[in-house]
Amino acid sequence: MKNALIVISGGMDSTTMLYEFQSEIALAVTFDYGAKHGAKEIPLARMHCERLGIEHITIEMDFMQRYFRSSLLTGGEDIPEGRYDDENMRSTVVPFRNGIMLSIACGLAESRGLKRLMIANHAGDHAIYPDCRAPFVEAMSRATQEGTYDRIAIDAPYTHLTKAEIAARGKRLGVNYAETWSCYKGGDTHCGCCGTCVERREALAEAGIDDPTTYEN
Amino acid sequence: MKNALIVISGGMDSTTMLYEFQSEIALAVTFDYGAKHGAKEIPLARMHCERLGIEHITIEMDFMQRYFRSSLLTGGEDIPEGRYDDENMRSTVVPFRNGIMLSIACGLAESRGLKRLMIANHAGDHAIYPDCRAPFVEAMSRATQEGTYDRIAIDAPYTHLTKAEIAARGKRLGVNYAETWSCYKGGDTHCGCCGTCVERREALAEAGIDDPTTYEN
Repeated sequence: MKNALIVISGGMDSTTMLYEFQSEIALAVTFDYGAKHGAKEIPLARMHCERLGIEHITIEMDFMQRYFRSSLLTGGEDIPEGRYDDENMRSTVVPFRNGIMLSIACGLAESRGLKRLMIANHAGDHAIYPDCRAPFVEAMSRATQEGTYDRIAIDAPYTHLTKAEIAARGKRLGVNYAETWSCYKGGDTHCGCCGTCVERREALAEAGIDDPTTYEN
Repeated sequence: MKNALIVISGGMDSTTMLYEFQSEIALAVTFDYGAKHGAKEIPLARMHCERLGIEHITIEMDFMQRYFRSSLLTGGEDIPEGRYDDENMRSTVVPFRNGIMLSIACGLAESRGLKRLMIANHAGDHAIYPDCRAPFVEAMSRATQEGTYDRIAIDAPYTHLTKAEIAARGKRLGVNYAETWSCYKGGDTHCGCCGTCVERREALAEAGIDDPTTYEN
């Protein structure tokens, strides 16, 4: 039954989820919050939805670039290099981003009569991003249920999977990871050095996928 | 200690809360989501903050008018008349509005090092608006705590007060309710007939306040 709304970025995880659950997804929403890599990610998110015949909308959140502090945002400090789980990645946290995206998605779902919100947070995010952890998702799902007539719930089936496990699912589904974007720097090609590039490389290798990405370094 | 962020509309309840808790409030945020009465309410919210020396920002949420369904929004169907607690007021629900406002407020608070989110939902809202009820506020507070490094919590001290009880507090604080806006229709003067005008009139009367509002009817 097509009654779910998915929050999709154009990265590996949400793209895999889009393909895996395509038969249940009625609407895909991408948030443009001024991320440095938004111009690379968002067109890919739209392209996958068009290919699968799933309605896609982009919601602009200009206020985040203007008022929020994060190295991930255009105008913020430089993206750190190194491993994804290092403390130095903490500057890339966009405060309560998943809460904001899920809340807007919830209001949109209720406006459309949809019953379920899907999001592709995963186990590798837990160290740095509090709004990717299971206790956050559970509390937020309780809030969306209590705060809507339709008791809209959050469904985050990758919460306890590693990125490599997600990539292995994508491999079985035939997802072409050349058509996804990870690098937080948002240059012409993936930098290969930032935390999310390192994580991407390792996940593809661990899943036994011949990495199709062009890396600058 | 000034470590709270308040969500303020320019209506009776949040204006009263602003005056009552002014010594604790570092930042006030108003959301412009395309409500028919936004042009009346928002300048009043800003005026009170300027008077009290509290920083005030307005966040635009164009996407709500574009994608959400509610009679409260510009371009939506007509505002119903009658009592505030009637089922016909249900068309004025803006899906998950408090969740969206609190989530954005949470990200903003974490960007600024603030620790607490204040919102002026009250007992009279509970019948129609699920995102004004205590179970929603409790779950949402759990979500903001789990989803932030600073464990930012929600403080909604009017949740169990009636609007008349809030007005009685405002009376003691010297709040001038002529400088607040309620009418959902957003005309030149309060219509006097819509649910929120009826509720305003009754609350002021019950609190023993000589109603300073000019009503059309």
